[in-house]
Amino acid sequence: MSRRKKSHQSHGSPQRPRLWGRHAVAAALDNPERKVVRAWATRETAAFMQFPKDVAVTLAEAPDLGRLVPHDAPHQGVVIEVEPLEDAWLDGILGGADERAVLLVLDQVTDPHNVGAILRSAAAFGAVGIVTQDRHAPPESGVVAKAASGALERVPWVRVVNLARALEEIAEAGFWRIGLAGDADMELKEALGPPRIALVLGAEGAGLRPNTREHCDALARLPITDVVESLNVSNAAAVALYAATVA
Amino acid sequence: MSRRKKSHQSHGSPQRPRLWGRHAVAAALDNPERKVVRAWATRETAAFMQFPKDVAVTLAEAPDLGRLVPHDAPHQGVVIEVEPLEDAWLDGILGGADERAVLLVLDQVTDPHNVGAILRSAAAFGAVGIVTQDRHAPPESGVVAKAASGALERVPWVRVVNLARALEEIAEAGFWRIGLAGDADMELKEALGPPRIALVLGAEGAGLRPNTREHCDALARLPITDVVESLNVSNAAAVALYAATVA
Repeated sequence: MSRRKKSHQSHGSPQRPRLWGRHAVAAALDNPERKVVRAWATRETAAFMQFPKDVAVTLAEAPDLGRLVPHDAPHQGVVIEVEPLEDAWLDGILGGADERAVLLVLDQVTDPHNVGAILRSAAAFGAVGIVTQDRHAPPESGVVAKAASGALERVPWVRVVNLARALEEIAEAGFWRIGLAGDADMELKEALGPPRIALVLGAEGAGLRPNTREHCDALARLPITDVVESLNVSNAAAVALYAATVA
Repeated sequence: MSRRKKSHQSHGSPQRPRLWGRHAVAAALDNPERKVVRAWATRETAAFMQFPKDVAVTLAEAPDLGRLVPHDAPHQGVVIEVEPLEDAWLDGILGGADERAVLLVLDQVTDPHNVGAILRSAAAFGAVGIVTQDRHAPPESGVVAKAASGALERVPWVRVVNLARALEEIAEAGFWRIGLAGDADMELKEALGPPRIALVLGAEGAGLRPNTREHCDALARLPITDVVESLNVSNAAAVALYAATVA
């Protein structure tokens, strides 16, 4: 166990994550809120990345970069070590939201690939932010950032201690809270109405926790067959965002 | 390199892939077309998996199962070694398709997680099958099967040598071929019409190849912002399937 822990630390830590991949790194360098501590790049990639002048860049060969990141991570010739972003505040997002705003709330979705892909879809469909429960969501990491393809830097991410309390605040701000649940009677299309929408998604398998369901204004399902139990959660989020956006 | 090759082979091979995870394995055991060669399971998981009588099941501890699969693979207490399924035939799928059929065509989408998630969404939205180019698609594998969550056993998968020729056959069978392209003028919603639909998706980054674009009846884009370049390809497929299904 100790060997494994050490190996993980050498690829960055929650306090000092490493990001890799051209889209993820370019977005981080472009984000004035993001503090970049150091950088490694191949000569070829360094030539077109816009590193700030105060960041020390170490030129390295691709296999050396491979040792800075988890096994098989597609670093694409560039790795940076960063400080995590400041958390976004729920108040700030709710206060600034317009009448067509869509917000995503994730109930214990822990897989970093999925959370990254959800951030990417949130950016793609113009969601005002994502809300997760602090203790049951992945920290910022290279995997999240790579899957988000730049969106980690662009989508406000609110981490709350108590998701039920957050859902109360979201309702008070005039959002209609729709929980996605495979056993719901209503289809998502029918549940969408004129006000601001908060789409609430649970983990695959477990789904929404009872207390989260109780803090939704409506439960709705996606129109899927019974050949599979559910969609991948990032795919469900993308479909729900599309449905809410074109509605 | 040789060490790595050996390590990959010990986790199954394209000729004899290993599948893991409860949904993926249960679906394989339930598929009369699937030949299961052998199985390993924890005592706990073996108690509720329906292994056929002619399959040798080795009881093992979870860490032992971990050595049968790639690093960190979530085996959930069960691993099986199988023979690949027989390829589905394009003729068969096209001939059996009804007037509302939706078919997915993937142009060089190689990531096994994405192809697996796309199979899962194809099953969820009742697509009649997926078509890939033999040389530029992942083989059956544990990663594909796990991401497909059972759908690898249930969605006909056609592998063709020449995608352009396949697209010609698809058109002759009365499918309207819509290529998803970020630079298209038309939104997907407008491109959807009454006939059978073939949704054609390219790899992230590269997109559809010119010759594939030329073999589409329409090019269409998803209604996304310019904050990110594109959606994850499995998310794009899920959104497109939803849009085609509810249309």
